[in-house]
Amino acid sequence: MSKEMDKTKSPKGFVFSTVEAAIKKPGRRDLALIFSEVESSIAGTFTTNAVKAAPVRLCMAKIRTCRGQAIIVNSGNANACTGKKGMTDARDMVSLTAKQLGISASLVYPCSTGVIGTPMPMERLTPAVIQLSRHAGNDTLEDVARSIMTTDTFPKIAHKRVKVGNAIGTISGICKGAGMIAPNMATMLCFILTDIAVEKKALSSALKSSVSKSFNRITIDGDMSTNDTALIMSNGVIGNKPLTKNSAGFHAFQKALDDLTYELSGLIVRDGEGATKLVEVVVRNAKSEDDAEKAAFAVANSSLVKTAVYGNDANWGRIMAAAGYSKAKFDPEKTDIFFNKVQVVKKGVTNNKDKEATEEIKKEKLRITVDLHAGKASAKVLTCDFTEDYVRINAEYRT
Amino acid sequence: MSKEMDKTKSPKGFVFSTVEAAIKKPGRRDLALIFSEVESSIAGTFTTNAVKAAPVRLCMAKIRTCRGQAIIVNSGNANACTGKKGMTDARDMVSLTAKQLGISASLVYPCSTGVIGTPMPMERLTPAVIQLSRHAGNDTLEDVARSIMTTDTFPKIAHKRVKVGNAIGTISGICKGAGMIAPNMATMLCFILTDIAVEKKALSSALKSSVSKSFNRITIDGDMSTNDTALIMSNGVIGNKPLTKNSAGFHAFQKALDDLTYELSGLIVRDGEGATKLVEVVVRNAKSEDDAEKAAFAVANSSLVKTAVYGNDANWGRIMAAAGYSKAKFDPEKTDIFFNKVQVVKKGVTNNKDKEATEEIKKEKLRITVDLHAGKASAKVLTCDFTEDYVRINAEYRT
Repeated sequence: MSKEMDKTKSPKGFVFSTVEAAIKKPGRRDLALIFSEVESSIAGTFTTNAVKAAPVRLCMAKIRTCRGQAIIVNSGNANACTGKKGMTDARDMVSLTAKQLGISASLVYPCSTGVIGTPMPMERLTPAVIQLSRHAGNDTLEDVARSIMTTDTFPKIAHKRVKVGNAIGTISGICKGAGMIAPNMATMLCFILTDIAVEKKALSSALKSSVSKSFNRITIDGDMSTNDTALIMSNGVIGNKPLTKNSAGFHAFQKALDDLTYELSGLIVRDGEGATKLVEVVVRNAKSEDDAEKAAFAVANSSLVKTAVYGNDANWGRIMAAAGYSKAKFDPEKTDIFFNKVQVVKKGVTNNKDKEATEEIKKEKLRITVDLHAGKASAKVLTCDFTEDYVRINAEYRT
Repeated sequence: MSKEMDKTKSPKGFVFSTVEAAIKKPGRRDLALIFSEVESSIAGTFTTNAVKAAPVRLCMAKIRTCRGQAIIVNSGNANACTGKKGMTDARDMVSLTAKQLGISASLVYPCSTGVIGTPMPMERLTPAVIQLSRHAGNDTLEDVARSIMTTDTFPKIAHKRVKVGNAIGTISGICKGAGMIAPNMATMLCFILTDIAVEKKALSSALKSSVSKSFNRITIDGDMSTNDTALIMSNGVIGNKPLTKNSAGFHAFQKALDDLTYELSGLIVRDGEGATKLVEVVVRNAKSEDDAEKAAFAVANSSLVKTAVYGNDANWGRIMAAAGYSKAKFDPEKTDIFFNKVQVVKKGVTNNKDKEATEEIKKEKLRITVDLHAGKASAKVLTCDFTEDYVRINAEYRT
């Protein structure tokens, strides 16, 4: 898509720029700026890892004001486990960006993704931030999506239109994922921008609700990172009366945001390191939503299930075993399992459909449904298969 | 080692036999009998998976009597998720074995390991059980260790001598492991035999204590199976007064059992599917033992840590991240990390020892020590690295 087309797809009032700061290997842009022409509402969700990167801790402190105007983000270095210097570096990036843009430092949010434990190369970042601010507007949101990639193989971007009164607003989102994706967001960065005005409490609650059913329900390798951040900025440029949870338009906004984050989280899983297949694990008729989630995550995180899917082996015993150790309460002898629409397990024993199941597992998209017959709750988790390439990519990540 | 040598190493009063029942591919023995010449005390620990194989459920019911004389075990088929037929098959194996041996069925314990969800081939097992009972004494404990292997690449056996009063007793153990090993024992079978008399309560408590610090502290892939069983049989043939927890000799017995199970669990990890390295994860100075265990398991189970070890990448950031999401309470900025004796992290930041650490990680045995400086508790977990071969083995398991 041409840059002009991409610009018309993105929400009004936001400009972008990207540069090569030489944090990553030469030839790849690794520093990006998202800038709203007017001050905005902002909300965020962050990693629950006890080890939090410096920029994450800084964002968590800043976001209490619910106000923001710019996001400065680098890839190649996570600025995590970098001690006092790491925090000073994050603050310096913020103040330099603010100075260049002529706005208050309180309105600038820093994010980082990449290797843990290496100090930030500030001597290269400082001139790059200056260059970046000068070129605001030169690039597109897709360019930003590309510049935050680490082991991702394609940029991840999605757009939704929402009618608000007589106006049409836009919500756009970009994210990066690939490895270290686990419950509660992991090495994931997600930036969502909208030109629809949303009151701060409603914005925060809408984001939390969407994230809980999308980014927090995906898993690639069960690891959770020090850096995940999802930020949403609402600049209100279309001029609507700010949406509250009671506004007529709020439901449509929430629905569009849900769809956007689910689409983005699907892109992350599809691009899981080394993955060849997208797997949706659905647990239904669980005793509680907590049970449904536990069982679905146990199946989705099982290395044995994921390697079986990769090997086109309809080995449902591994699914039973994973559900069994999930601590969800159920009776194995009432449990049914389906591969897409083919029922492979009926009341806990084989339904003699191994041949048909093998045909299903060969497809690029697989839905594993586990029906526990223990209640009425359900949960859906997205994951991918587990391949030799995952091992290769992660064994060689820093070499 | 010759069969005669192996026989003198094993405890007195036990005989063994193994046959090919054609459950596995041709040419491999897959059915074995352990028989004590006299009735024995017996104790066991079993999988905590909600999905339990038929023989596991049967053993759990039988063991309440604390009496046993024979163990009948097959590999190649787990007899799990096999419904009512599975339970009937397990009972039939027991009653047939008892009849052939001329003992009460209540004294025979059945165990199975292998593929889940396939009915047992009873038409082949029935004649094999008869053959097996006739040949009791023809084989050695090592032959049994070999016959219970699934994806294991070598038989696992260990012996300890214990002085009890004026007599010398023996404790011998065999086990099988390989894939699906996780906290709480997983696809693990372990049979421990001793000619030392131990009172039933003391036997059960000694086994639980040993297992909690050995088999329950190893992890290969984080999966937990439907079939794990550890059984200990004490036939008292050396004629000592049965040991109780207050006996002078009990401490030495417990110590020998601890050493035996730790040695066996090390053999399981060393033979982890596709593994090239043995990794000991030690968490020390945690706030509580629970915290220490959580952090150690999070590091030991992390796919990212395990692939980094495989790739000789001293990527300690992944260790910090794993400890961080373990839910153990600690201050990242006080944390130290060591690779063997090389300190790579000092108070949460790099100690600039990457080169030295890389030399350590290249070794076949690696000890990762995480010092949380949060209290006085510690825990040790054994694991292995994560390789392309693990994926290959598990993608092709049933093909």
